[in-house]
Amino acid sequence: MKRRNFLQKAMLPMAGVAIPASLQFGKLDFSDLPGGLKILFQGDSITDAGRDRGRYYANNTQGLGNGYVYQIVAELLGQHPTSDLQCFNRGISGHKVYQLADRWDIDCVGLAPDVLSILIGVNDFWHMINGRYDGTAEIYENDYRKLLKETREALPGIKLIICEPFAVKGGTAIDEKWSSFDEYRAIAGKLAKEFGASFVPFQEVFDKALEAAPASYWCPDGVHPSIAGAYLMKKAWLEAFHKLMMG
Amino acid sequence: MKRRNFLQKAMLPMAGVAIPASLQFGKLDFSDLPGGLKILFQGDSITDAGRDRGRYYANNTQGLGNGYVYQIVAELLGQHPTSDLQCFNRGISGHKVYQLADRWDIDCVGLAPDVLSILIGVNDFWHMINGRYDGTAEIYENDYRKLLKETREALPGIKLIICEPFAVKGGTAIDEKWSSFDEYRAIAGKLAKEFGASFVPFQEVFDKALEAAPASYWCPDGVHPSIAGAYLMKKAWLEAFHKLMMG
Repeated sequence: MKRRNFLQKAMLPMAGVAIPASLQFGKLDFSDLPGGLKILFQGDSITDAGRDRGRYYANNTQGLGNGYVYQIVAELLGQHPTSDLQCFNRGISGHKVYQLADRWDIDCVGLAPDVLSILIGVNDFWHMINGRYDGTAEIYENDYRKLLKETREALPGIKLIICEPFAVKGGTAIDEKWSSFDEYRAIAGKLAKEFGASFVPFQEVFDKALEAAPASYWCPDGVHPSIAGAYLMKKAWLEAFHKLMMG
Repeated sequence: MKRRNFLQKAMLPMAGVAIPASLQFGKLDFSDLPGGLKILFQGDSITDAGRDRGRYYANNTQGLGNGYVYQIVAELLGQHPTSDLQCFNRGISGHKVYQLADRWDIDCVGLAPDVLSILIGVNDFWHMINGRYDGTAEIYENDYRKLLKETREALPGIKLIICEPFAVKGGTAIDEKWSSFDEYRAIAGKLAKEFGASFVPFQEVFDKALEAAPASYWCPDGVHPSIAGAYLMKKAWLEAFHKLMMG
């Protein structure tokens, strides 16, 4: 069977359809990564991603969920079998900053991670506009700063990755009210600078991805990424992690 | 905070520990991949990987499970947003060849995939040695050949990927009885040649990976891969897929 025969059936040949530059990431070299690192992923449903919360040990497949955390850990562990990496997912669906604070002793300080990655903020905004929470951007900023400050005090050597909360234009849950979500994104960026954290610009990643395919492909409701959207997040996160560790 | 300060805590520095050549894979160029491909993954628990069987539509995150299929689909969809790929997982835990045959009309022919990937055989052997099945290598070969023949007749244009069943040395379920599993692996290889399928040499992939880390890291019981083992499978599968489509 010749390939060209087979292609009779194929629609939309990809030839000439290059991957948009915005979706290309350089090949990262982690060969100098220190061994024995403990990495903690914290956040809300985007991080949680259906993980089995009873499987809370390091590197447990079901305990990692099926979102960007799973994809990051798969690549790190697959590529670095001698690095003794320990990765934990402690995202919980629906959480806002104050709910992270409520469980921080066990779910962060007690784990004593070397690297802490946080993606939080979309519910601080979303639950406010839908009337389930009376927070404001100021409360988000103050709560978040307090959490980071206490984290640094408890774990002075910790390295931080602050992920930008995002809202993907065209997602079914995103309407005109979301224009004020920009303020929350800006706060996350500001705190990243204040705390010397590596910042992952997820909003830009998704904005650029929309050049190639619509929100329905990357993040149907605008908040929860598809498997393809989680792939973009993995790539961007690994770049930020690389910069943090090797840069 | 300087990186070297941070590294005080880090054990086992990775510096100088290169990724074994056996774990390195070339960068694959799929830019000429035909659009609109439908890819079906068939097999047993390794393919199933805890998928939500009620979410059987194409590219559904939960419906893909959290094994090698998820990782393959994440990379294909993440890298090829304009390709209109449709990927399905129909692996079912515990299945042997005859059980694929029992559900083939709906779970293969009815889906009419352009590309069919099959990983089957470990239960045909395992359930025999533990007394739950009275099959033999000959039955495996005959059943498998019949299934492939009928598939080709029903879907003449189909492209086939036959994955080698594997048993990872040092896995907790693997004992001396498994030496005769080699015969099953050889049958899968033989059928791949007979049907002009692309063959994925998973046994060799895992054998080489053991140079870098033990079975407990890649595939604890010797049959079901860890997230890192599933990563190796993804890489090897994508190479076979690339050869099949672009080679």
